[in-house]
This record gives sequence, C-alpha cells and structure tokens, in this order.
Amino acid sequence: MSNIREVALTAGVSVATVSRALTNPEKVSEESLKKVHDAIKAVGYTPNLLARNFRAAKSFAIVVLVPDITNPFFSQVIQAIEDRAQQKGYAVLLGDTRETSKREQEYVNRVETRLADGVIQLRPQSMSSSTQKIPWVNACGCEGTPGPSIRVDNIAATKAMVGYLTSLGHRRIGVISGLKDNPHSIDRLQGYKSGLTAAGIAFEKELVAEGDFTMWSGQNAAKQFFRLKQMPTAICSMNDEMALGATQALKAGGLRVPEDVSVTGFDDIPYAKYWEPGLTTMAQPAEEIGKLAMDTLLRVIEGEELSNLELVLPTEIVIRQSTCAPPAN
Amino acid sequence: MSNIREVALTAGVSVATVSRALTNPEKVSEESLKKVHDAIKAVGYTPNLLARNFRAAKSFAIVVLVPDITNPFFSQVIQAIEDRAQQKGYAVLLGDTRETSKREQEYVNRVETRLADGVIQLRPQSMSSSTQKIPWVNACGCEGTPGPSIRVDNIAATKAMVGYLTSLGHRRIGVISGLKDNPHSIDRLQGYKSGLTAAGIAFEKELVAEGDFTMWSGQNAAKQFFRLKQMPTAICSMNDEMALGATQALKAGGLRVPEDVSVTGFDDIPYAKYWEPGLTTMAQPAEEIGKLAMDTLLRVIEGEELSNLELVLPTEIVIRQSTCAPPAN
Repeated sequence: MSNIREVALTAGVSVATVSRALTNPEKVSEESLKKVHDAIKAVGYTPNLLARNFRAAKSFAIVVLVPDITNPFFSQVIQAIEDRAQQKGYAVLLGDTRETSKREQEYVNRVETRLADGVIQLRPQSMSSSTQKIPWVNACGCEGTPGPSIRVDNIAATKAMVGYLTSLGHRRIGVISGLKDNPHSIDRLQGYKSGLTAAGIAFEKELVAEGDFTMWSGQNAAKQFFRLKQMPTAICSMNDEMALGATQALKAGGLRVPEDVSVTGFDDIPYAKYWEPGLTTMAQPAEEIGKLAMDTLLRVIEGEELSNLELVLPTEIVIRQSTCAPPAN
Repeated sequence: MSNIREVALTAGVSVATVSRALTNPEKVSEESLKKVHDAIKAVGYTPNLLARNFRAAKSFAIVVLVPDITNPFFSQVIQAIEDRAQQKGYAVLLGDTRETSKREQEYVNRVETRLADGVIQLRPQSMSSSTQKIPWVNACGCEGTPGPSIRVDNIAATKAMVGYLTSLGHRRIGVISGLKDNPHSIDRLQGYKSGLTAAGIAFEKELVAEGDFTMWSGQNAAKQFFRLKQMPTAICSMNDEMALGATQALKAGGLRVPEDVSVTGFDDIPYAKYWEPGLTTMAQPAEEIGKLAMDTLLRVIEGEELSNLELVLPTEIVIRQSTCAPPAN
C-alpha cells in the first residue's frame, strides 16, 4: 500500500499539506486540494481511517443490542437500521445479548472506549446506570422506558386485540405472555386486563400461560390450557412466534383453529401470513421503528438532548384466518 | 473521565510507565504492572481503545457480509459467529448486502482502512478481486468458491434428497431453484440432476421453477407447476423458505401435502419443524459453520496462509411429515 509521502511527491506539495487536506480540508486551497485528491487516486492511497477517526474521535459505527437475532421481528428492525446507517455512512455492530447483562456491558464498553459512537437498545429496558452517559436510543421499548424511545403503545395495542376478540363474541380468552418480569409482558398483560374490563369480563389467573417469546414456549403454553377444566375459546399471544407454536399444539391436540379456538399474535412477522391458518396479529411498523431509531441516535450523537423524546408509532390489527366467532354450544 | 496522568499519580509511577503497561506490558515489571492496574481500577480510567487499536493496527471487529439477514438460516449462522467473536474479544459488524456489490464494497473499505480486521462472506461467491488482499473467509459457499471456505456439499446433499424421494417411489420430481445464476442454485441443480440420473429418470426442463429463496417466490414457483399438464408428485425446494411458501400454495390450490405432492426443503430452519405438515429437509450445521468460520478468520488475521483450506461439513436428511410415497393412480 502506498503512503502519504508518495502522495505528497506525486501532488508536488508537502506531506503536511496532504495531511491537512485529509483532516482539515477547509484550511487548504482549492488548487492544492485538487492536486492531493488527484495524487491519492493516482497512487492508490487509502487513508488510515482508524487514525482519522481517532483524530475526529468518531468511529462511524453504532452498536445495536438485540435480545435474540433469530427472532424475525428483530431481524426486520435491524435490517431497517442497517439500511439507514449505510445511507449515513455508519456501520452497524451487532450485539446479540441473549438477554444477559454481561454481554451488553461488553458492547457498551466499545462505545465508552470510542470504538462505536452510540447504541440502539432493542431490549425492552433502560441501559444500566453506568452507561447513561453514552449516546443511546431505545427502540421497541415499553411504557416508562427512559428516552429517547421509539416504540408502539403495547398496552393500547393488546387492549385493542382483546377488544377485537370480545367483539367476535369471545368471553373466555387465554393469554400467552413472555417471561413475567419482561417489560413487554407487563405492558401487554395490562392491556389484556384492560380489554377484559372494557368488555365486563373478570380476569382469571388460570388463563395466563407464561412463555418466553419462542415458538417452543408457545407450544408448551398451549398445552397448559389443555389441562384446564374448560379450554379458552380464544388465545391472545404476546408475539407471533408463540402464537405459531400454540396453533401447532392446539391442532396436534385435536382442536381446530379457529373453529374451536381462535389465536392471535403480535408483530406480524413474514411467517404470520404464510402460516396455516394465516395468523391474525397486531402489526408493528418494524421498518419505521428501525429508521427512526437510527435517525434519532444520530441526533443524539451530534449532541442534541433528546432524553424526553418518546415517539409512539401506530400499530394495526391484521385480520387473517386464525380468528372467528367462538363455537356455538 | 479520569486520565492517564491521574493513573500515574495514584500508582506512583511515571506516565510513560502507565503507557507501557497498557501497550507493551511485557516491558514492565510485575510490581509496576500491578500498581498501574490497581490505580486504573481506583480512578476509574478507561483507556482509549481506539488509540490503542491504532497503535496495534487492530480494531478487534470483523465484518459479516450476509445476503439477507431476515432469512433465519443466516441469522442462526450469524448468532454462532457472534458467540465465538465475543469469546475471542471481537465485535461483529453486520453488512446486509441485499445482494448488491456496492454495499459489499462499502463494508470491505472498512477493512482496508482498518476499521475492521477481516470479513466473513456469507454470500455464495468470492470477494471481488480488489479485496483479495484483506483477511477473509467464505462460509456457506459452493463448490469452487475460493478458500478459505467452510461449507456443505450442496451437490451431494441435493442428490441425496432426490435419492430419498426416488426411494419412496417418486419419478416426477419438480425442483424450485433460487435465481439461476446464483452459485447455490447451480450446485443444487447439478445435485438434482445427478439424483435423477442415478434413478434412471430423464431431466425435464419444465420441472424446474425459479424462485429467489424467499417464501413469496416459493409460493409463486408452486403455482407454475399447476400450469403443467401433469403435476409433479414431489417438489424438491432449494431452501426451506421456498418450500414453506410452496406448501402454502399447493394447499391453497386444493392439493394435500404429502398425500398428493411431497415437498422437501434445505437448511432446517426452526420453522420447518413447526410447519404443517412438518417439513422434511436437509439440515445444515448452521452453528458449526459459524463457529468454524470465526475460528478460521482469526487464523487468517494472525497471518496463516489458508487460501486452500476447504472444510466441508456433513448435512443430514430430517424426515418429517411433508413426504410420503406418491399417490397410487
């Protein structure tokens, strides 16, 4: 690889001028700048960006912390972040935290030590207190997640989904939650309860089955309902993956979806549409969330104080084949 | 944030000693090293890693180039790469190339300019010639992809899958390929043809339907078969997502899977198991591929010459409910 001295020689300027042209171009005459750029091209010189970034104290990379990259909802959000980051000249460092704080901290260290300029946190919680000083944005968070926060209204959305089920005539509605202390589970359970209350239905603890947002756990949760004296006529799942696992278990147990049991999801991942039966779900604007998260993080990196910013994006019920009126009897 | 002078003061050593302890610890006495480390802890000093890496000419980050992060097979491989990278102190820069060379080049530039130390290429092709000089490894590639390469034998695996279908009695076997010039499509088509030949079946062009590895395209490809005078009794899809889309279209068209048409996939993504019917598929060792790719890249970064290395990992037919003997008629 050629070096800065060759560039200077070819351009007929001093090494200092080349250096200035690369770091403080506004201090170099247009004429010299052109000479330097032509020379860079001619000799095939690649400036050492690591060195440049050291001077600029910027790495032009951001970290995305994601609880589980194999969840297709998150991979859609990440794809949108990555698109926007590319447009803005940033690379995306991927931190699959597997829900552990230790791994999260390792990535945060990269920001504190300037290997990245900021963090988009896709876990539904605030960053640990030691990291409040670094630029960060929460996306896909919950009610009360410290800002800047780009999210949907999980409570209202779940309430609306329960409202849709009660409008079909369902009165005995089960819910499959994520882990009980997960903020999404807490918000969506509150929405579920509000939906029941709005329809004059009493909350029954036995109708809550706990999963962990994976298909496997949705399958297991549905099996819990089989042990009840009376099955629910509808199951409201807190995400699509668990809903898909649940329909599988219901059908394996000899029940028809939706004729015997209606099932709903949350997210609208691509599989929801192709499932049999097609899954009725609450669509989240994954692409919009990703774009806005990146744009907001760039504003924070530039020094804007946005900790009170809370962008709540609309959700939408997508009605497919997994829901109908409850069986007559 | 505290600085190196505070550390020196607290440790009772010179600034030069602190600097040496951070960059060339082998040149510092054990006693001084301990003093420095205790002082770093005491004053809460975070060394500027960007500066450290500049000196070491290492960024401790690698780039993963992936054609489509929303494909669950790739997200499994990435998760395994990320696990291994974490263990080794590396971060993963994610480059979702969307199959465009321009985006690939932008990420490669980050390596050339030392913002990353190497590349794992998940696209089934070699890197463009200008980038042969940077450390890189191909994972999930094809026959003839320049090494180092970690892959499965796509030809033999597809041949084996067709062999399984002919062993069930199928003679009219359709294939859903990816885009025709995609190296995976080329290898797997060759395997499909070999499988037919081994069973004494002539290749028929009308039994090849082209997709692009997405569910949507699998659905479309299956619809093409409906237009034939005679439907195939089995469809061998070059990946799971297209197979899932195809079963959906077949069932929507009034055919039973597998009683009327058997369907097979390739990859064994998590959805394959939960699909209805459960998808018979050729399982790839996604986790093992990811781990070995990262380990191999680290060896290349350390200077080992491994361009002839080709690790071919075993695949396995997973038989589920989407395949059976052809209908009697």
